[in-house]
Amino acid sequence: MTTEERLTSKLAEMGLTMPAAAAPKGLYRPVVIAGNLAYTSGHLPVTPDGQLITGRVGDDLDVERGQQAAALAGLGILATLKAELGSLDRVVRLVKLLGLVNCTPDFTQQPAVINGVSQLMADVFGPDAGIGARSAVGVTALPLGVPVEVEAVFEIAV
Amino acid sequence: MTTEERLTSKLAEMGLTMPAAAAPKGLYRPVVIAGNLAYTSGHLPVTPDGQLITGRVGDDLDVERGQQAAALAGLGILATLKAELGSLDRVVRLVKLLGLVNCTPDFTQQPAVINGVSQLMADVFGPDAGIGARSAVGVTALPLGVPVEVEAVFEIAV
Amino acid sequence: MTTEERLTSKLAEMGLTMPAAAAPKGLYRPVVIAGNLAYTSGHLPVTPDGQLITGRVGDDLDVERGQQAAALAGLGILATLKAELGSLDRVVRLVKLLGLVNCTPDFTQQPAVINGVSQLMADVFGPDAGIGARSAVGVTALPLGVPVEVEAVFEIAV
Repeated sequence: MTTEERLTSKLAEMGLTMPAAAAPKGLYRPVVIAGNLAYTSGHLPVTPDGQLITGRVGDDLDVERGQQAAALAGLGILATLKAELGSLDRVVRLVKLLGLVNCTPDFTQQPAVINGVSQLMADVFGPDAGIGARSAVGVTALPLGVPVEVEAVFEIAV
Repeated sequence: MTTEERLTSKLAEMGLTMPAAAAPKGLYRPVVIAGNLAYTSGHLPVTPDGQLITGRVGDDLDVERGQQAAALAGLGILATLKAELGSLDRVVRLVKLLGLVNCTPDFTQQPAVINGVSQLMADVFGPDAGIGARSAVGVTALPLGVPVEVEAVFEIAV
Repeated sequence: MTTEERLTSKLAEMGLTMPAAAAPKGLYRPVVIAGNLAYTSGHLPVTPDGQLITGRVGDDLDVERGQQAAALAGLGILATLKAELGSLDRVVRLVKLLGLVNCTPDFTQQPAVINGVSQLMADVFGPDAGIGARSAVGVTALPLGVPVEVEAVFEIAV
């Protein structure tokens, strides 16, 4: 299967449609390509119909809802990449994810939350190319009050 | 206009002089070049006469003063780059910014704060090369009590 | 001296043995190589006999114990790199560190804590190749309650 075919299959499994690539809301680009690396901006969790997920993990959201938010942020990254590259089949591999979790000070399951986006990447790009290096971090606040922000570096075919 | 000419113009508009490149205060280098990418260290907001800005956004500083601090951190990045490269005209483009905002847990306008440095980069490098990917994040504490820390990746001509 | 010889010497000085490379605990790889850059995941402080260090700096841990934790996270990065590359002699230089410190809101010595890992890198790779760009940041919570998480980018010979 190609990456695009796996994406279609994964979206069906999630019961979601591919969101439109988000327009930048400030002085940044959703993705910049330098050489064979694509650097994405931090993406926030937005549902395919455009609703922003908000709240703090460990307080308003439990781990499972945090994972769902992380997956939505990841879906936004895929939409951004697809808009930039034309097809996700041009992606060689996921290099790195930085997963930021807006959480209470006593919350320690940031990796479980960020697995929401890592599982999406593994399913779409496959278990080799779709699993990259990663850091999961708990932070005190995120833009617009979202629970998760995710940025990524991909290797692409040029 | 060249980048160096835009920098001169922007400094005049801000009423600032170019700061000296900051000497590293620990076991790090202000910038490291690998291939055609320049990775900067996190830069703190320092005025051209060397005064460090401190405080927490959402408490001691409002959004506008946070933006000014972010612009000063960005000016420090430009001073570091200029010291390393000789001229900012060697910069091909801004690839990525990571903007860290020391803020209260209920503060959600990190992107507005980080626009302070993004506007500087856009003005100096131009609206294409000066706008990169970006993440804005709220954190619980920063070195020396500063409100903003900014790190950047640039593509350079080699 | 080669890097591997400096590593042996540094381990003796620290009174530590080289830890085994940590198996990934989730959907990530400890390190991914893209071109001539090696991106590591965030590494947590684990003693060579496998005990995780936990606690918050500024509360449970002072600066010195935070530095020791940072050095252990760095040792884990070296173990990961050695397992991937065969020999640390293949490392050209440290490009960048991101040091995340789980700390109280009033703690401002993140750079001193992260010096624990920077000193290790400088001792093992030497004072030129082992000192890279760096950001030190205070965050509200880290995975499993650790005080320090460190990720790194290295340039390698390919």
